[in-house]
Amino acid sequence: MTLSAFDTANHDDYPTRLPAEKWQDRKDPVVWGNWTPEAPLTRAQTESFEKNGYLVLSNVFSAAEVSALQAESARMRSGEAEISAENVITEPGSDEVRTVFRLDEENALFDRLARDRRVAGAVSFLLDDDVYLHQSRLNYKPGFTGKEFYWHSDFETWHAEDGMPRMRAISASILLTDNDALNGPLMLMPGTHKKFVACAGETPEDNHKTSLKKQEIGVPSHDSLTRMAQEHGIDYASGKAGTVVLFDCNTVHGSNGNITPFPRSNAFFVYNAWSNRVGQPFAAKNPRPAFLSARNPKAPIAIEAGPIR
Amino acid sequence: MTLSAFDTANHDDYPTRLPAEKWQDRKDPVVWGNWTPEAPLTRAQTESFEKNGYLVLSNVFSAAEVSALQAESARMRSGEAEISAENVITEPGSDEVRTVFRLDEENALFDRLARDRRVAGAVSFLLDDDVYLHQSRLNYKPGFTGKEFYWHSDFETWHAEDGMPRMRAISASILLTDNDALNGPLMLMPGTHKKFVACAGETPEDNHKTSLKKQEIGVPSHDSLTRMAQEHGIDYASGKAGTVVLFDCNTVHGSNGNITPFPRSNAFFVYNAWSNRVGQPFAAKNPRPAFLSARNPKAPIAIEAGPIR
Repeated sequence: MTLSAFDTANHDDYPTRLPAEKWQDRKDPVVWGNWTPEAPLTRAQTESFEKNGYLVLSNVFSAAEVSALQAESARMRSGEAEISAENVITEPGSDEVRTVFRLDEENALFDRLARDRRVAGAVSFLLDDDVYLHQSRLNYKPGFTGKEFYWHSDFETWHAEDGMPRMRAISASILLTDNDALNGPLMLMPGTHKKFVACAGETPEDNHKTSLKKQEIGVPSHDSLTRMAQEHGIDYASGKAGTVVLFDCNTVHGSNGNITPFPRSNAFFVYNAWSNRVGQPFAAKNPRPAFLSARNPKAPIAIEAGPIR
Repeated sequence: MTLSAFDTANHDDYPTRLPAEKWQDRKDPVVWGNWTPEAPLTRAQTESFEKNGYLVLSNVFSAAEVSALQAESARMRSGEAEISAENVITEPGSDEVRTVFRLDEENALFDRLARDRRVAGAVSFLLDDDVYLHQSRLNYKPGFTGKEFYWHSDFETWHAEDGMPRMRAISASILLTDNDALNGPLMLMPGTHKKFVACAGETPEDNHKTSLKKQEIGVPSHDSLTRMAQEHGIDYASGKAGTVVLFDCNTVHGSNGNITPFPRSNAFFVYNAWSNRVGQPFAAKNPRPAFLSARNPKAPIAIEAGPIR
């Protein structure tokens, strides 16, 4: 018999969706590995990730690699490469493709990208474990009409609705367009990964159907967000296409809308530690569907080195 | 008998609201005055305004002046200082005050601000004429929910709907909050003031009732905006409270939404050259109401020197 986390509340280190919002300390390390000179990140990078909860790595992928990924992305968004309808989300109020889920299953090149040592190797070191993809997607935020994505901690949702036990997951965003401050970049509040904000309110059934477009349950209150922003400030991840942004599962982040003509696109991979595989949701009746939350990974991903083409 | 510009199309140097969009050259100077060492702006500032179509002046108002203006602003927004309902615009989807029009008439301190030599004196020099307020308002863009304001040239609307004959007007935004790249700053496309984009589409009756919240007629096409952004880039006006941004009536500008907890507020004055007073609209049946477009200014404003308190 397997214990259900949902039934055994005493195993829940991060209770959330409570009658009232509550702050608590993080009960997990941020960097699980021990840094050595052989690590795939420098000591300064490792310390910066630990302190801030994110890390921007410039010039990780070459121009040729970026071109190949952009071409594949365009093929998927144009409909030329077939994608199952359940894996596509469109922009509110238009037909433009905003997200392609299960990117690693939909496209061989992006599967290779997900397994690249420069990304997955660094994450595996930080988590000190084998990793698998909890979620993977292509984000495309068109120019002129790109909508905002509101502040949230991913872990809050993954814990409550997907059954992820511990804070031992890292997201990687690989920029496929140049990003600056004005075209809706990823904004992060440095240091917020060290507190857990248990959110107020019960999880509605099928919450993910609306929360993907506009999240209302499972987000910190305005008061909490103001306090965090005043204490920690707000940073943003900018860089040329080919830049990689790694961020901890509990770092509060969001993005503004984008009225500039410049689109924003990235490949987005959520790596979870193999030892941290999901169980029953901690604060929802049923787990979210598999395209949001891989439920039965067969094996850790096989990390590969060398150029992507 | 006064000639009506609306009836005498041959007097219109900037025809717009046409069957199809059309680009043309600007037919007016940007800087009307001749720079001398006595001018209220440096030669470099004057040349920069001419070239880019805007100018950011830091530390114009002291901390004490800014505090006094912020206190008056809070009093107006709280309802403590009475404002006639017709002069107030609220945020779409909420009751929060977004704009107070006729700011100079609603509030003595802001009237004094509008007449301050550091702003009105600089504008009067650039336009080489006495000036009056074509429009004046307090903008308040709350944190978390501040909506975007789409790209446009003010002159296109002022010409089409208000009957402003020439490009001889300058807007001044006096920042009442700190502004950075992330909380919905004013974005400008440098150099766009030197072309006029005649817009496609007829002006609907009472267009201002919807265009203040979301402008759809009188804005350049996506193609034109993309071309401008690629050619000129996009800049933004940032600075501490007390900063002044001057921009030409034809510089294309807009702003993104703002999900940060940090509100954005400014006092906004549109100075028109006395010799450029408005007549009948060039491309609308009736002029917009007086709170958007002062129709019968009695006299140029009386510029004052010295601290504001």
